[in-house]
Amino acid sequence: MSEPIKFYFDFSSPYGYFAALKIDELAASFGRQVEWHPMMLGAAMKVTGAKPLAEIELKGDYCKNDWDRLARYMEVPWTLPAVFPIGTLAASRAFYWLDDQDDALAKRFALAAFNVYFGQGRDITPAETVAEFAEPLGVDRDALLAAVQDQAIKQRLKDETGKAIDAGVFGSPFYIIDGEPFWGADRLWMIRRWLKSGGW
Amino acid sequence: MSEPIKFYFDFSSPYGYFAALKIDELAASFGRQVEWHPMMLGAAMKVTGAKPLAEIELKGDYCKNDWDRLARYMEVPWTLPAVFPIGTLAASRAFYWLDDQDDALAKRFALAAFNVYFGQGRDITPAETVAEFAEPLGVDRDALLAAVQDQAIKQRLKDETGKAIDAGVFGSPFYIIDGEPFWGADRLWMIRRWLKSGGW
Repeated sequence: MSEPIKFYFDFSSPYGYFAALKIDELAASFGRQVEWHPMMLGAAMKVTGAKPLAEIELKGDYCKNDWDRLARYMEVPWTLPAVFPIGTLAASRAFYWLDDQDDALAKRFALAAFNVYFGQGRDITPAETVAEFAEPLGVDRDALLAAVQDQAIKQRLKDETGKAIDAGVFGSPFYIIDGEPFWGADRLWMIRRWLKSGGW
Repeated sequence: MSEPIKFYFDFSSPYGYFAALKIDELAASFGRQVEWHPMMLGAAMKVTGAKPLAEIELKGDYCKNDWDRLARYMEVPWTLPAVFPIGTLAASRAFYWLDDQDDALAKRFALAAFNVYFGQGRDITPAETVAEFAEPLGVDRDALLAAVQDQAIKQRLKDETGKAIDAGVFGSPFYIIDGEPFWGADRLWMIRRWLKSGGW
């Protein structure tokens, strides 16, 4: 049994959102599992000296058009949120708290977070908002609000982010498959090719 | 008759090299011409605050592996030149000088430049090297050496670079099709889709 594909992303990353909608299906077609790893991309950007895409001269405007176009081509919901980019501490911490209990639930939660933020354009910074969209998935509101303030969970997200950077992750989405790194929502064809050829 | 697809690149850009090997064939399958525009990417990077890929922590190592992999998947020659990245003034100026005489010859010259640099790994900074690989294409050596020192040709490259940046170009490869911008060697699928749908 091969080890799971590692999928790294930031909840505030549009390209991460697009990739999240596709990666499990792609992996499953090769009989592979995917392990999701939300992270604080800002920490990696300090290492590479990168700035948030939307704030970069020329590139920011390009990306805004590219996100619209990508959503149209993928036929998925898309809204550029009024508050963008954001710090995604609450959603990321809640993810790891859920992941330790039930990884399938954690993925449903992550997809809900992406949908609320980039599908509906609603700010997911406040823990209260996170608790609200998690509730229909069967997540207890008060337990979630307590978890995102828990020291161990806070440290867990820091550790996950540090481990991702140590593994070479500098962008979102990022995938590591049997040690091989892939970066970008537009590298799914390459991942398919890699899996098909048995890692060459 | 549609206007030509504009293809922007820097001779020192690996992703520009990979795109140069494919863009004309893709365009031709939709009955479209391609106009090549080498530029000094450094000028655009000043606007965006970007650094050369190979010099970026984490990203540099990722890209080196990605170039190897891309060349393998595309089945094209690839060497990371010992001298990289480089300033490509001589090759870019020679391109525009040739382009004014014969655009098909200018493209053959550009492909030769890319092949010498990224296929063979040989530094194409010196004008003498550029003159040498242009000679088998029927380009007079002394005329080329004079052209790359000509004030009007020097200014032409500056103007082309300025016009590219004004049009929103910030990376290599970059394509503008009927006003729509596309960035990256991995966006050929998107260009195909755009052309197929008649620009939607």
